[in-house]
Amino acid sequence: MSIAAARKPSPFASAEDRERERKEKRAAVLTTAASMFCRRGYTATQMADVAAELGVTKPTIYYYFRNKEDVLVACFEVGFEQIQATLREAEGRNGRERLRRVLIAYAELMGEDFGKCTVQIPVTDLSEESRKRVNRQKRRFDDQVRALVREAVEDGSIGPCDPKLATFTILGSLNAIGLWHKPEGAMSPTEIAEAVVEQLFRGLDKR
Amino acid sequence: MSIAAARKPSPFASAEDRERERKEKRAAVLTTAASMFCRRGYTATQMADVAAELGVTKPTIYYYFRNKEDVLVACFEVGFEQIQATLREAEGRNGRERLRRVLIAYAELMGEDFGKCTVQIPVTDLSEESRKRVNRQKRRFDDQVRALVREAVEDGSIGPCDPKLATFTILGSLNAIGLWHKPEGAMSPTEIAEAVVEQLFRGLDKR
Repeated sequence: MSIAAARKPSPFASAEDRERERKEKRAAVLTTAASMFCRRGYTATQMADVAAELGVTKPTIYYYFRNKEDVLVACFEVGFEQIQATLREAEGRNGRERLRRVLIAYAELMGEDFGKCTVQIPVTDLSEESRKRVNRQKRRFDDQVRALVREAVEDGSIGPCDPKLATFTILGSLNAIGLWHKPEGAMSPTEIAEAVVEQLFRGLDKR
Repeated sequence: MSIAAARKPSPFASAEDRERERKEKRAAVLTTAASMFCRRGYTATQMADVAAELGVTKPTIYYYFRNKEDVLVACFEVGFEQIQATLREAEGRNGRERLRRVLIAYAELMGEDFGKCTVQIPVTDLSEESRKRVNRQKRRFDDQVRALVREAVEDGSIGPCDPKLATFTILGSLNAIGLWHKPEGAMSPTEIAEAVVEQLFRGLDKR
């Protein structure tokens, strides 16, 4: 066999190619499912609808995921990874600045499908096991924001407050973006994020 | 027939009695259903569970309501009546005071089952017709709070803000009480309501 022939690319996909393709297809299922869960609701979305949207058959979806809950849990996982990534924004000259940057990044995520999934779908729709995992992730981020609030109180860059209740108040407002935001709205996710975070820092009272 | 015999109460219930009894039974179904929807979720709650909790058979429930959605919509209606009743609190020397009182009353409701139902159950779980009714009620209260915010800005009792975005921020935090509140928690609904509303007025920034 000549060297040229040996170098000719194989018509069979390599293990790497197959793995990359598998990941891309899995990601496409999740992107489509997350979008449908947000628009129609989790209960109303059928796996057949997700398959139809992707132009594949239902068994193709079941090659990647066991069932609808498995798809939802994977959507939640992407959402929670994105949420954890917002903590990389925790940079700045003081606690207030670090807190503000994380909150804006989080509020922006609430305008996107995977972020929305984490707040729109009631955990009561999940099995006991999945519910525990999801609640653990939600509590984790809550604790992380609470620590940022505490740091900002301690370095004096925000006013004194109860970090637990303040975090509860903040995340309530920001999660609400994920419930109400419509992609066709006039304001971009960044504009909404900045306006809501600004309102939380300023408060309603006169300054 | 003697006068005494004529005055003897009839063993048959009067039309009034029957109507009162019907209303009481209907209300008992709703109270039980609202509690189960909040604890287990709407999707997971079966009408058979509600009947069992009340010690009646499922057909008894179906004497009062056509189906599960009909029960949920009636729960929403009780919740929205209670929400509308919070506007009676809109009294006080200025816009800030009137706004604050309504927000506290609303936040307290979010610690109770009918209030919780209005925020915990995704409207996507409802039929198109019911969804429209529920969204109309939600928008109504949103508009009413927005008007209170505007009045408070105009009489100078709170700082300048965009009433739409401020209302969005406020109601997000207060609705979150209905998502997170646990009856077994250490703080009462009134304590939570006052603390969250105080945080929204004060803001995170130093004063």
